[in-house]
Amino acid sequence: MTLKPLYDRVLVKPIEEDLKKGSIIIPDTAKERPQQGEIIDAGEGRMTDDGKIIPLKLKKGDRILFAKYAGTEFEIGNEKFLIMRESDALAIIEL
Amino acid sequence: MTLKPLYDRVLVKPIEEDLKKGSIIIPDTAKERPQQGEIIDAGEGRMTDDGKIIPLKLKKGDRILFAKYAGTEFEIGNEKFLIMRESDALAIIEL
Amino acid sequence: MTLKPLYDRVLVKPIEEDLKKGSIIIPDTAKERPQQGEIIDAGEGRMTDDGKIIPLKLKKGDRILFAKYAGTEFEIGNEKFLIMRESDALAIIEL
Amino acid sequence: MTLKPLYDRVLVKPIEEDLKKGSIIIPDTAKERPQQGEIIDAGEGRMTDDGKIIPLKLKKGDRILFAKYAGTEFEIGNEKFLIMRESDALAIIEL
Amino acid sequence: MTLKPLYDRVLVKPIEEDLKKGSIIIPDTAKERPQQGEIIDAGEGRMTDDGKIIPLKLKKGDRILFAKYAGTEFEIGNEKFLIMRESDALAIIEL
Amino acid sequence: MTLKPLYDRVLVKPIEEDLKKGSIIIPDTAKERPQQGEIIDAGEGRMTDDGKIIPLKLKKGDRILFAKYAGTEFEIGNEKFLIMRESDALAIIEL
Amino acid sequence: MTLKPLYDRVLVKPIEEDLKKGSIIIPDTAKERPQQGEIIDAGEGRMTDDGKIIPLKLKKGDRILFAKYAGTEFEIGNEKFLIMRESDALAIIEL
Repeated sequence: MTLKPLYDRVLVKPIEEDLKKGSIIIPDTAKERPQQGEIIDAGEGRMTDDGKIIPLKLKKGDRILFAKYAGTEFEIGNEKFLIMRESDALAIIEL
Repeated sequence: MTLKPLYDRVLVKPIEEDLKKGSIIIPDTAKERPQQGEIIDAGEGRMTDDGKIIPLKLKKGDRILFAKYAGTEFEIGNEKFLIMRESDALAIIEL
Repeated sequence: MTLKPLYDRVLVKPIEEDLKKGSIIIPDTAKERPQQGEIIDAGEGRMTDDGKIIPLKLKKGDRILFAKYAGTEFEIGNEKFLIMRESDALAIIEL
Repeated sequence: MTLKPLYDRVLVKPIEEDLKKGSIIIPDTAKERPQQGEIIDAGEGRMTDDGKIIPLKLKKGDRILFAKYAGTEFEIGNEKFLIMRESDALAIIEL
Repeated sequence: MTLKPLYDRVLVKPIEEDLKKGSIIIPDTAKERPQQGEIIDAGEGRMTDDGKIIPLKLKKGDRILFAKYAGTEFEIGNEKFLIMRESDALAIIEL
Repeated sequence: MTLKPLYDRVLVKPIEEDLKKGSIIIPDTAKERPQQGEIIDAGEGRMTDDGKIIPLKLKKGDRILFAKYAGTEFEIGNEKFLIMRESDALAIIEL
Repeated sequence: MTLKPLYDRVLVKPIEEDLKKGSIIIPDTAKERPQQGEIIDAGEGRMTDDGKIIPLKLKKGDRILFAKYAGTEFEIGNEKFLIMRESDALAIIEL
């Protein structure tokens, strides 16, 4: 079974990173906390009001930082996934 | 009796999937939970502010993932249906 | 006395359908419940910000499904009517 | 003293109709209730963001149905009046 | 000292009218109450998103009806003034 | 150290005016209260959605009236400053 | 590991300034408080609705003043960082 995100949505596999030095640690504050994930698949692009498709920048394999409460969460088998809009992604993580 | 969705709306038959391995399981969290459904019919397209019709991507027979609380629910006979906007659909499920 | 809806508004006579098999049954849930009605008259069209009139798709005699809490309700004599925007209509019912 | 409504506003004299057969009766429900009125004067038109004037459809003498809580209410002498935007009017009443 | 309103703002001197016959009386209701005032000065015009200036219709000396809670109130010496956007004005009062 | 406001923002030094005759007095009401200030520096202009820069009208040395709760307050040494958008300014004060 | 901000986002290292004379002091008030930071990296630009990229004004090394509650906070190792939109930045600090 494959999930093909629609328009400007991306399918993300969240990464539960060990809190080792150099990794991203999310402080326990009132501030919105970001989270890491990997792009499994991306939609064909955002559709403008006028019907034009603007391709996404994010692509399969990109590792991203995103706002923790962004998107819609679900499981396939025992794996957690998220679908969010590309605009919910904050940065690309280059290792 | 047939229901023909208007403009960018789609008629969806929700799928109550068995929670077997490989299927989509919706975790019981505070997060918005998605649900599966099949497109029964789709409107002719979204109308732009200027009156142009932009055809929908979703078509009869597509299986989709959508945000659980999206759309309007009703029954014909004993079957449940939903009408929602195409933008409420998150992804196409390819089996 | 005649009511001529303005711009993108439609005049709707709600239909209190018997709950027989094949008819639309509205479940008693927290979800927004749709309702049936017949278009009595339709406005000349939606006006764009720039003053262009976009004709409506709905016309006198169409039977529609609409969100129950959409529009403004009133009575002429003992008959109930609603005035709503065309965008509050969800689907055309073809019998 | 004369009141000249600005832009897309209309000056309305509300009509307290006797609840005789054939007149519009407003049911006592939680729904937004419409009311009748007569257009005393209308502004020169709605101004678009770009400064173009779009003439109004409503004109002096039109009898309209409008949402009860629309507009701003005041009295001149002992007469009640309302100023509202044309978009608050729902339908023209043709007797 | 002179106050020159910026862009689409107007400087208004509120008028505390005696409640004699023919004057505008504001009923003590839950509805938004209008108030009278005189335009002391008007800005050069509303700026569109694209930087074009659209001249105002209101000018020094106009007597207007405006929504009571519109604008920002202050005093110069012992006189009360208001600065509001032209779109907060409802009608021009012609005596 | 110099602060260069970005885009349509202006740097303002608030003026604590003595409440002498002819000066602006802010009444202690529920209404939004304006305040005086001097423009220390102005951004290069508002950027439109399309990336065009629209120069600001306010410039260094202008004395303005602004809504009291507009902008962001901070101190350099013991002096208070505000950064606000030009659209938060209500009027230019000409002495 | 490198974080590359997406579109109009910037990666900021907050600066905890000593409260010495001449530095920016944030008063403890109900007002929104600004904070200082250094731009570590900036996205390629804001994307317009139509898909055009508008380059950012902020660049690596700029020292900025920003609204304290803007953006998303996280740590890499023991260092705190923020990702915010360029429009959350108020001014460039020139030393």
